[in-house]
Amino acid sequence: MTNPSILILPGDGIGPEVMTEVEKIIAWFGEARDLKFNVETDLVGGAAYDKHGTPLADSTLEKAMNADAVLLGAVGGPAYDDLDFSVKPERGLLKLRKEMDLFSNLRPAQCFDALADFSSLKRDVVAGLDIMIVRELTSGIYFGEPRGIIKEGNERVGINTQRYTESEIERVARSAFELARRRGNKVCSMEKANVMESGILWREVVTEVHAKDYADVELSHMYADAGAMQLCRYPKQFDVIVTDNLFGDILSDAAAMLTGSLGMLPSASLGAPMENGRPKALYEPVHGSAPDITGQGKANPIACILSFAMALRYSFDEGAEADRLEAAVETVLANGARTADLIGEEGVEPLSTSAMGDAILAAL
Amino acid sequence: MTNPSILILPGDGIGPEVMTEVEKIIAWFGEARDLKFNVETDLVGGAAYDKHGTPLADSTLEKAMNADAVLLGAVGGPAYDDLDFSVKPERGLLKLRKEMDLFSNLRPAQCFDALADFSSLKRDVVAGLDIMIVRELTSGIYFGEPRGIIKEGNERVGINTQRYTESEIERVARSAFELARRRGNKVCSMEKANVMESGILWREVVTEVHAKDYADVELSHMYADAGAMQLCRYPKQFDVIVTDNLFGDILSDAAAMLTGSLGMLPSASLGAPMENGRPKALYEPVHGSAPDITGQGKANPIACILSFAMALRYSFDEGAEADRLEAAVETVLANGARTADLIGEEGVEPLSTSAMGDAILAAL
Ligand SMILES: CC(C)[C@H](C(=O)O)[C@@H](O)C(=O)O
Ligand SMILES: CC(C)[C@H](C(=O)O)[C@@H](O)C(=O)O
Repeated sequence: MTNPSILILPGDGIGPEVMTEVEKIIAWFGEARDLKFNVETDLVGGAAYDKHGTPLADSTLEKAMNADAVLLGAVGGPAYDDLDFSVKPERGLLKLRKEMDLFSNLRPAQCFDALADFSSLKRDVVAGLDIMIVRELTSGIYFGEPRGIIKEGNERVGINTQRYTESEIERVARSAFELARRRGNKVCSMEKANVMESGILWREVVTEVHAKDYADVELSHMYADAGAMQLCRYPKQFDVIVTDNLFGDILSDAAAMLTGSLGMLPSASLGAPMENGRPKALYEPVHGSAPDITGQGKANPIACILSFAMALRYSFDEGAEADRLEAAVETVLANGARTADLIGEEGVEPLSTSAMGDAILAAL
Repeated sequence: MTNPSILILPGDGIGPEVMTEVEKIIAWFGEARDLKFNVETDLVGGAAYDKHGTPLADSTLEKAMNADAVLLGAVGGPAYDDLDFSVKPERGLLKLRKEMDLFSNLRPAQCFDALADFSSLKRDVVAGLDIMIVRELTSGIYFGEPRGIIKEGNERVGINTQRYTESEIERVARSAFELARRRGNKVCSMEKANVMESGILWREVVTEVHAKDYADVELSHMYADAGAMQLCRYPKQFDVIVTDNLFGDILSDAAAMLTGSLGMLPSASLGAPMENGRPKALYEPVHGSAPDITGQGKANPIACILSFAMALRYSFDEGAEADRLEAAVETVLANGARTADLIGEEGVEPLSTSAMGDAILAAL
């Protein structure tokens, strides 16, 4: 049997810097644990635009469609601010999500005990926090038609369309219920059913799927504005949150920030199973390309490393190895290792990106 | 000259309870400060549905259109959960906002010093916080067409449309810049221009209005997801935030919660000037109808009382009287008066709704 394949797309900004550390980790698993991968690297985002005039070349998309897992760093940056919307770095990422049909985006919001004091929230509000946000990733207002800027009379009008079909809602709801069963067995679904018909359908379909196949899971519903409030007030009330593409974008960023673990949080974007049984999958840190610190060796590689841990768990069925990698991260944090983003005003001396990668390697 | 008129719409749930306290305050201003108002009361939301079969009767809308200011309590509640979307209590409120063309919704997120320890955030992150969120209130995905749940093949599809015209963006941007000049002189505009064309137009128009007439105000732009992050991390970086209807709904709720002042925060929704020079205006607390505590005398009347303070300031040009009322609220809080919502686990004895109203009256 051939080794499973990983396509690495470092992207822009700090993407390549953090990905270098992940490559060290992948190599370690090959040598020390005999978990060997066929790794290939390609361009995405601004880096792809610079070379090909498009943020995602067809050849790259084809590689991604055939890879057992894709690891992505980050896309975007001020150098691309004036590009036309259709070739912006973000379009490359959105096209990958859409073409690979990665409908279920898992975003853990976890508070690492060693970092609880770094949160802007009080320690007891966030310590031990462990939420999983399941964000629908291939539909909604991100992709709905009609869209664009049109002229009406002598005015410009900006238009986007939120559009959700029953089956789009159903499949992401199922993935949330399945996850909940392996965690705290609770799902909270968030929308604005009091204002939007797409929210009414969302609530109805989630309720139907639940009644039909997941009645053992505790289900609640919350308006997204109330959800944002509750996340800020008492986040530990949640286990799994399932929500649409746009609400998921905002709520998961808020939740990530609450944990104080900025620069720490990974994500997995999963699609339907391929022929080999593995889901189509893309793994990426929640943080962006961080142009302000690019090239300075200051970036925190942990979010990207933990994204690879999610790949071990969800693509390669290597839960124990994922645990090993996550434990190594916890160990170095408990020992006081910090990159610059994790240091408050008092400040210990920060580790560089590669020093943090090495510390994690040493703890493995 | 006749006295200025106020239409009071107590609405549902705790709405009538908190409004009773506001009526006492209004009466006090008439007697003690010779500020007399013609006050009329009517139904809205579920209460209006119960009587008229519609959450906003035409006669009520007409009164609202002619009033110098409208004060609203809250709408909605579980008794109305199964109503058809078109007659839900919320539709009454949304129709008022739309028909009165109240495009600029001001939502202060203020941390009252006496309550800073009640926030889930650390004291130094929130103490002294004073943000003004300006939310566009009459357009966007709340009102765009087409909308609804349609059948496609054998699937239901939920559809909503985000739609912003240049002039809709321009007028709310102007109101944000005007406000900023009387505050910290900074505006941060939030959208998702990296994903939505309506966000691109939003950013362009805000930038144009700024360059043309408000170059003295400091303007920045942020993606709404990053904005949610920054609000949770370091909210004091903001002065005025301007954003669309949907993002404003979520971000203002998150911001309100951060302050720890749940049950404390007022809002003003302003439209174009009427013949008498006053803006069309509706004032309402940010909190909802709180069905869980309805009828128990537990509700905090302060948000509704401070909404009347906003009316004094923005509708009646009585800034000094608004200051007086706000100072009375600060005084009772500093003296330790707390309704149940403001009490943590340690817990002092809570004041009832009317006892809090009386305490504020006494401090006036
Ligand atoms: C980069 C951007 C297109 C993206 C999104 O809006 O989905 C990002 O914010 C994210 O959450 O992954
Ligand atoms: C009650 C509801 C329709 C309303 C909204 O979504 O605008 C509320 O959440 C608000 O923020 O005023």
